Amino acid sequence: MSQTSLPRRLLLGPGPSNVHPRVRAAMAQPMLGHMDPRFLEILDEVQASLRRLFGTQNPMTLPLSGTGSAGMEACFVNLLEAGDRIVIGVAGVFGERMCEVATRIGAQVTRVETPPGTILSDAAMAEAIERVSPRVVAFVHAETSTGVCQPVEAIARTARDAGAFVVLDCVTSLGGLPLAVDRWGIDATYSATQKCLSCPPGLSPATFSPRAVERVGERTTPVQSWYLDLDLLGGYVGNERRYHHTAPVSAIFGLAETLRMVEEEGMEIRTKRHAECGHALVEGLLPLGFTPLVEAAHRLPMLVAVSLPDSIRRSGEAALRRRLLDSYGIEVGGGLGSLAGSIWRIGLMGENARLTSVESLLHVLRRELT
Amino acid sequence: MSQTSLPRRLLLGPGPSNVHPRVRAAMAQPMLGHMDPRFLEILDEVQASLRRLFGTQNPMTLPLSGTGSAGMEACFVNLLEAGDRIVIGVAGVFGERMCEVATRIGAQVTRVETPPGTILSDAAMAEAIERVSPRVVAFVHAETSTGVCQPVEAIARTARDAGAFVVLDCVTSLGGLPLAVDRWGIDATYSATQKCLSCPPGLSPATFSPRAVERVGERTTPVQSWYLDLDLLGGYVGNERRYHHTAPVSAIFGLAETLRMVEEEGMEIRTKRHAECGHALVEGLLPLGFTPLVEAAHRLPMLVAVSLPDSIRRSGEAALRRRLLDSYGIEVGGGLGSLAGSIWRIGLMGENARLTSVESLLHVLRRELT
Repeated sequence: MSQTSLPRRLLLGPGPSNVHPRVRAAMAQPMLGHMDPRFLEILDEVQASLRRLFGTQNPMTLPLSGTGSAGMEACFVNLLEAGDRIVIGVAGVFGERMCEVATRIGAQVTRVETPPGTILSDAAMAEAIERVSPRVVAFVHAETSTGVCQPVEAIARTARDAGAFVVLDCVTSLGGLPLAVDRWGIDATYSATQKCLSCPPGLSPATFSPRAVERVGERTTPVQSWYLDLDLLGGYVGNERRYHHTAPVSAIFGLAETLRMVEEEGMEIRTKRHAECGHALVEGLLPLGFTPLVEAAHRLPMLVAVSLPDSIRRSGEAALRRRLLDSYGIEVGGGLGSLAGSIWRIGLMGENARLTSVESLLHVLRRELT
Repeated sequence: MSQTSLPRRLLLGPGPSNVHPRVRAAMAQPMLGHMDPRFLEILDEVQASLRRLFGTQNPMTLPLSGTGSAGMEACFVNLLEAGDRIVIGVAGVFGERMCEVATRIGAQVTRVETPPGTILSDAAMAEAIERVSPRVVAFVHAETSTGVCQPVEAIARTARDAGAFVVLDCVTSLGGLPLAVDRWGIDATYSATQKCLSCPPGLSPATFSPRAVERVGERTTPVQSWYLDLDLLGGYVGNERRYHHTAPVSAIFGLAETLRMVEEEGMEIRTKRHAECGHALVEGLLPLGFTPLVEAAHRLPMLVAVSLPDSIRRSGEAALRRRLLDSYGIEVGGGLGSLAGSIWRIGLMGENARLTSVESLLHVLRRELT
């Protein structure tokens, strides 16, 4: 597979995003052992940088050895035991996935739903939390299936006040929006590397509050996943350096380099860059007949969900997406679940949150549609 | 992290092994989406090549998105339900890990043990299988904690004859020893990329027989892991191409390149290369006072476990390993579990199964020890 045999893509779907050459070069470095002192230094550096990015002092902050979905599962298998009650906010496919994962643990799931494209109601979540008195409350910060940015603070406060642990999905927000895990009172959150961090998929940055870690120690049944058991993982990423599983060394080299780039740029500038691009994309799409699914106040900048003009629905949206890919090398995402066929999801994440990406896509769409 | 800032290592521990520049370059290629037709072609190619390497026609052959330990968990969570009986052969740390994983699923575990460095007895396994009539029989082909190569066929035949599903750990054997999953009658097996395939850690090549896949469809309870659910994974790696989780694209680029190199070389030559190196290492270590833990007939070529001479035990084996790493850039592995402090595990895996690796280590040891 020579370098020239793969097509070049501008990845404007829901992730992965394009990976910077610095990160690709870091991943291609010669291998180190997972117990090598130099590798463990890099792991320490990654953990420290992730703490700053998540906005937390949590010692238990680490890249889990799986994708974002493994991160979701890690939070739930550690905090839930069979029979535990959980309230889950379902605003799209990823809230739905939370219900599925929690059900498989044997938890009693109470769903609080909201129509696709809208935010969860603080009042409805509070009502469910009061009624159910759950062990865990879980919801999604940046719902990748609808492009909604969920306000976090009120729900998290209500959950904490009711004595619940708070789990937040930050898969699409980490590195694109400022996070304040400690100030918000989040007990467990997970992300993914292939969104606003612009790394390859394969790792799930995650963080757990001290009281979440304590809770895991007080369980009456073992964590059902040995691979994702926080206590065992802590033996490796903590001071003991006890072997658990072999860390994905090269992927962590890549993550370390990405995090250096994020810190060099600074989250303030990075946040502004994502916001500007999201805004410019919507402005450019409106004259072409696309309409945003989400009202402006709750629209994600890095993942814009737009309803398709009738002309595209009639002629087949999948065919047009395929033409963008084949003729122009641009990938955009279709709808998931109930929104399949009626929306597109356009990602401007990390490296791709550039006005040049926005202009490239708009140029091609104007050419194809007018 | 510039290319020059990381130390160069000769990785002669229990994995990861050194990664060939071709594989590192493949991983550094620009990103493709996980639904990109070109990426799906590469995934198809990887699956086909893994089938040849495992010695199977199983359609359900795939790289799982986690390390070898996730592969172990995937086999068990799919084939076992709470209350199911399983017979596990425990010849070292990884058989022990199987017991732990199966227990967390709620299975009734029957252990058949053998002292470290010895193979499981066919008769003892047969006795337990007859007595317990288990749903699953599991054991390890290449026990990475002891360097034992377990004969597979008799145990697998007994298990099949008793109506059990057979799970085999091939973490350290895939790519270094010929495997015959179909001929042996194995229903589920998993490996890892960082051993004899000489890829970075992070993926677990695995394969499941049609009757194993059927069994998963007939479960009365859902697979407890959503992330590792074979039925959902099959929706993506099969013909439907249904999104499940985002595949680790770059890691799969690397695996594809490794598999091309394995096929270019051919397993016959590759097997011979591993065998010769393992033999040469033992021959060279004997005069230095190291003695093989395992008798010649059942000794793994790619992972040689040796008992340490008294002089090294007395002066501290960890200190000598650290000196080999710091002064010569050579990593070797210590003992795990009950063997910690009394053995070394020396890996000659994939790219490192070269007489030059053997000579480099022996040269350094002679210098340090005489």
